[in-house]
Amino acid sequence: MISLLQKKRLEYRIEIPQSLRDFQNVCWQKKKGTLPVKEDVRNWFPKTCDQNSYELVKRSSKNISLRIGVVFSGGQAAGGHNVIAAIWDAIAQMGDNSQLIGFLDGPSGIVENRCKELRKEEIDGVRNLGGFDLIGSGRTKIETPEQLKAAMKNCQGQKLDGLIVIGGDDSNTNAAILAEYFVASGCETSVIGIPKTIDGDLQSQDIEMSFGFDSACKTYAEMIGNIARDALSAKKYYHFIKLMGRSASHITLECALATHPNLALIGEEQKSLKTIIEEITDLICYRSSEGKEYGLILIPEGLIEFIPEMKQMIQEINCLMVDKSSEKIIEKLEKQSRALFLTLPESIQQQLLFDRDPHGNVALSQIETEHLLIDLVKKELAQRNDYQGKFSPLSHFFGYEGRCCFPSNFDAKYCYSLGLLAALAVRDKLTGVICSIQNLKHSIEKWQFKMVPIVQLIHIELRKGKRKPVIEKTLVNLREGPYSQFAIMRKALRLQDDYIYPGPMQFFGDFEITDSIPRILCL
Amino acid sequence: MISLLQKKRLEYRIEIPQSLRDFQNVCWQKKKGTLPVKEDVRNWFPKTCDQNSYELVKRSSKNISLRIGVVFSGGQAAGGHNVIAAIWDAIAQMGDNSQLIGFLDGPSGIVENRCKELRKEEIDGVRNLGGFDLIGSGRTKIETPEQLKAAMKNCQGQKLDGLIVIGGDDSNTNAAILAEYFVASGCETSVIGIPKTIDGDLQSQDIEMSFGFDSACKTYAEMIGNIARDALSAKKYYHFIKLMGRSASHITLECALATHPNLALIGEEQKSLKTIIEEITDLICYRSSEGKEYGLILIPEGLIEFIPEMKQMIQEINCLMVDKSSEKIIEKLEKQSRALFLTLPESIQQQLLFDRDPHGNVALSQIETEHLLIDLVKKELAQRNDYQGKFSPLSHFFGYEGRCCFPSNFDAKYCYSLGLLAALAVRDKLTGVICSIQNLKHSIEKWQFKMVPIVQLIHIELRKGKRKPVIEKTLVNLREGPYSQFAIMRKALRLQDDYIYPGPMQFFGDFEITDSIPRILCL
Repeated sequence: MISLLQKKRLEYRIEIPQSLRDFQNVCWQKKKGTLPVKEDVRNWFPKTCDQNSYELVKRSSKNISLRIGVVFSGGQAAGGHNVIAAIWDAIAQMGDNSQLIGFLDGPSGIVENRCKELRKEEIDGVRNLGGFDLIGSGRTKIETPEQLKAAMKNCQGQKLDGLIVIGGDDSNTNAAILAEYFVASGCETSVIGIPKTIDGDLQSQDIEMSFGFDSACKTYAEMIGNIARDALSAKKYYHFIKLMGRSASHITLECALATHPNLALIGEEQKSLKTIIEEITDLICYRSSEGKEYGLILIPEGLIEFIPEMKQMIQEINCLMVDKSSEKIIEKLEKQSRALFLTLPESIQQQLLFDRDPHGNVALSQIETEHLLIDLVKKELAQRNDYQGKFSPLSHFFGYEGRCCFPSNFDAKYCYSLGLLAALAVRDKLTGVICSIQNLKHSIEKWQFKMVPIVQLIHIELRKGKRKPVIEKTLVNLREGPYSQFAIMRKALRLQDDYIYPGPMQFFGDFEITDSIPRILCL
Repeated sequence: MISLLQKKRLEYRIEIPQSLRDFQNVCWQKKKGTLPVKEDVRNWFPKTCDQNSYELVKRSSKNISLRIGVVFSGGQAAGGHNVIAAIWDAIAQMGDNSQLIGFLDGPSGIVENRCKELRKEEIDGVRNLGGFDLIGSGRTKIETPEQLKAAMKNCQGQKLDGLIVIGGDDSNTNAAILAEYFVASGCETSVIGIPKTIDGDLQSQDIEMSFGFDSACKTYAEMIGNIARDALSAKKYYHFIKLMGRSASHITLECALATHPNLALIGEEQKSLKTIIEEITDLICYRSSEGKEYGLILIPEGLIEFIPEMKQMIQEINCLMVDKSSEKIIEKLEKQSRALFLTLPESIQQQLLFDRDPHGNVALSQIETEHLLIDLVKKELAQRNDYQGKFSPLSHFFGYEGRCCFPSNFDAKYCYSLGLLAALAVRDKLTGVICSIQNLKHSIEKWQFKMVPIVQLIHIELRKGKRKPVIEKTLVNLREGPYSQFAIMRKALRLQDDYIYPGPMQFFGDFEITDSIPRILCL
């Protein structure tokens, strides 16, 4: 049984750029000029580091039937189903014997050869709908020699012309590693990456925006706007709203621009915990002196990772907990970290000492930053002699409801084009590249298509004591663009209740409402 | 600054039933046949208990300029601004000297004469938009002789022809008390009630539905559907979603019918805590045996009030805590209640012992039922030898984001008509009545309008040891209608993932999507 809106979305006719409508007239062509790759990165990718970007050019090309494998990797993002639908449509156009194989439940499906051939009816049942449930997703990385070998064996066994990896920074790094391994081993399966993540941190000069960001932000902004209106109506609560999207604060920034909260913390500012608590407390006192005992504060999920002294303390705990009991850990912390630890609420202390992520480190995503802030602000308010107000905080966390929402028209169209580009890249035998669409803020006919070698995005980082190739997460740039705009309006928003109510995402009606794009693309 | 959707909604042209387009042709007429009022209720309302319902009849009527006061009472519900807009439009039509006075921040605004005259520009700025922020709301009751006297003095001072109270069960009871007091004191201000509450528990033979319920459920259902899709994509989490709307489980039932979760608890079934925990644990084990380690469980906010042994224990705590320390309370509990108390997680024990509502009782709305259930289910699973799965629960609470959402078209239209009816009731000098629209599931021209004496909805209840007149909350009826439909499908939903994804509320496009009405009205 499906909802009326699901039905209508299945019927939505996606706009396709003119140049992608007939693959017999276009192909990928290597761009001129060499792109330098850092020496330490070259060492990891000796076979695939020397390629340039590709641009789409008009040229009569031969279509052939293709067998393509596709996999979702990592957290959900709205629009993923459209990537798959586009690949399917593209290869169906290329040849009658084309087949699309979906690897199940993430990259482990490739290693373990768990997959299924995707059929027209299934594809037609998920067009323009959210989620990754057509084939599931997972967080396994293909890293060990055994995993790499198994992945290659299975791609060869499936006779795949290409493997399309729909994922974020780590997953696209993994795609580059797979591509290198395949080339070095003489496996002809192309590996193509698609930039996915609601976090918006997979950006570069070439990648303007990952898909899913727009839909997630629209969903969160709807809820934030509703809560802002509630705050202004009831006039008695401070709403502390934590938003998914670690580590970077792009989602918080986009939602702040869309809703105008009284305060939005931006992790990248790297303020100390003391400064943050003072800032919030000042806000509450200031508003209270003007008769306002309510407000709206946005908190990025990754905030805690940017607070210098928290970061320091967490690093120490991570090192100590390898072989110390929890009492010993507190003892052994450096003086400053111990002092900080002892100021934290008991529940947070417990999380720091006992909750572990899969690598045995402090489980950062489990730490309830919103409760931490509320607790510390309460203490700070108690010490302010001039504060006579009544502080009633409420906390919210918006995350899962934004990852699997219906894709916005922007994400639906963007994903569909990404899927077409990826299929074309397989036909043209590219590998180790990621799909890039630029000029996204303009109309679809002005979009520019590129294939970018993933190695171009990679640098070498220390991870768990080992040097590893990774795509660096792009953080909020504090010197320009959307942050600057936010910084200008920020002071006025503290006292003014200039809340904006974006309301629910709309799919029908005026183009400017149905097809709006993320603010951070425009600024 | 307003959003594009706000702008569009301001321009939305509300459908108005033919009979309400020209007030010179209609008036309220007493219906024939007397309505019996219980003796104990008569004693509370000697002056106003003997009235019948009123029906709208065609008759040439004289319009006059009116001065009307309006107040929001209690929690926010989408559509409230449209009630006010309709009153304004109605009295503007009735005479050039009409004026609308908004009492600020709830009934305390009446007692303290805090009010403002509402102007066209302000009214035009909130049409079809959510929230109560035009004049604010509050939870004060006008009960003491001093409050009643002050309220009357201020209504007389403002020369009000009528006072329109937009509220839920308690607020409409309060409207009836005010009406009685005004009549008994010779004050000619009419008091008219409007049925508002997202909880959906202000229902009767005459009141089919309170406003705000539809919009809140649509907003919650959007989020629940998104999370269901995430559960099915990630395949590793059990989502425990608590929904606002105590005490009754109407919201949970409506959302369950809209989204098909694996389990939806209905408070009115009055199951024991043991039964509920077993039911959830059985579900998890059953799904695990079929390879499913994820699922979706809906929990009504009021659940805890319906669990017989919890109710008993809470009553004991409420009695004991008047003069006992918290240690003593545990000692003094009856054997069964003490045993229950000791099985509860520490955080819930703390809430029971230390969190107080404004009346000094256990703060039921603060108790995190979703965490209680998760904790007890974990313990129960640990004891099941045949369970080998991995239980990863996540909890959510949806509440504030549904109270101040954009009103659905249904709520927008419903509220607008309610406002027109109320204004007409003031013109026709009715008092102590509540607006009723029946046939809501049919097209607007088939709606039937009535004014119902509030005393008809009232009975006498013991509240804090005192007999008081109250409007009884209407609970989910376990013998018919929507619950029966839910009960039929419930077994299949446990294992099947037949989730429905309603998606965001739509305001443009096909009528069947934009103007859908609550399921529980249709069944």
